[in-house]
Amino acid sequence: MTAEFALYGYFRSSAAYRARIALNLKGIKPELRFIHLLKDGGQQHTAAYKALNPQELIPALVHAGHTITQSLAIIEYLDEIVPEPPLLPKDALSRARVRELAYVVACDIHPVNNLRVGLYAKEKFGASDDDIARWHRHFIRLGFTALEAMLAASPATGLYCHGNTPTIADICLIPQCANAKRVKLDLDPWPTIARIEAHALKHPAFDAAQPKNQPDAE
Amino acid sequence: MTAEFALYGYFRSSAAYRARIALNLKGIKPELRFIHLLKDGGQQHTAAYKALNPQELIPALVHAGHTITQSLAIIEYLDEIVPEPPLLPKDALSRARVRELAYVVACDIHPVNNLRVGLYAKEKFGASDDDIARWHRHFIRLGFTALEAMLAASPATGLYCHGNTPTIADICLIPQCANAKRVKLDLDPWPTIARIEAHALKHPAFDAAQPKNQPDAE
Repeated sequence: MTAEFALYGYFRSSAAYRARIALNLKGIKPELRFIHLLKDGGQQHTAAYKALNPQELIPALVHAGHTITQSLAIIEYLDEIVPEPPLLPKDALSRARVRELAYVVACDIHPVNNLRVGLYAKEKFGASDDDIARWHRHFIRLGFTALEAMLAASPATGLYCHGNTPTIADICLIPQCANAKRVKLDLDPWPTIARIEAHALKHPAFDAAQPKNQPDAE
Repeated sequence: MTAEFALYGYFRSSAAYRARIALNLKGIKPELRFIHLLKDGGQQHTAAYKALNPQELIPALVHAGHTITQSLAIIEYLDEIVPEPPLLPKDALSRARVRELAYVVACDIHPVNNLRVGLYAKEKFGASDDDIARWHRHFIRLGFTALEAMLAASPATGLYCHGNTPTIADICLIPQCANAKRVKLDLDPWPTIARIEAHALKHPAFDAAQPKNQPDAE
């Protein structure tokens, strides 16, 4: 399935990291196209890329001539067209739990800490780099504290967020853990999250997707 | 299906508004439980509510004794347990498009403009109410400009974001339009969005879900 797929990404983007994990889990090796988010004022803002994704964000997946943006739309799509291994459990309540855990990261932690939001706060509120790092830590702490409670309270939590195989929840959580470490946040206060991260990173699909293992890593 | 479901919400919350639209479309009349986000320092922070949702955010849906949080997890769950009318198209590429449009709102506009983010910017960066309104307008403009391009470019766009029946994309878009108006943003620059909003608000499921039509409206 190599030539059919192309992924536009950047090694450090945690949204692109999610897409890489899902592609690896499904055994898909896309052609990789690199969009440097800082070089040239942000290559995601070029006319060529904007034609592909009007949001000027990564990742974008091209499959058989169709472009899909938004990491979670990409992941649900991959799960629908390549059912094995499944990234969501079978029953509706479990699926809801997995999506809920995924959205805690994808809707309530990650977007607030997005590059463009920090740039806005710097420009308009005179926030310093340290202010932005504190801001990131604040929203990661809020989200991880809730996630830890949700994970620790449920018998459905296993080696991964839900059971003993990776789901969309882990695909969102592990890149967010990398972001936490980038702003010097230790995972010790959240032992279940730390345990799941350590386990997931032993999985080749997660390991190969790590920022440091990308061809465009700096 | 009345007594089986309970929805914790707040009239003005656009995430709760999404859940209300989905419940209405599916013909479910939940028991309504009101969580005032500002009164008493925010009723979402009480121990009782936190036990239900460790994120201390609304909405939360209780169904047959199980609690589901995160509006999009609630909506996908409802769509799985009550298949008619479907909130997602049938084929994988169309489903990806609908989710993509939904996540533009749910992941890249709404979270940045969340109440708690504004409160943080006020406290840490000394942002004023006007600064926060400008901030909201900025990220709505970015998101709506991308959405407008995505909607206007596709032959799949119909009376609604995808075809002629409501999907998850509309369920996210219409509450975001209400938020835009609250910060005095006119929809004129985005004619496709404005057209879809006008059409959707004629649908009883959307109309009945509007903030002004809730029992806790102020």
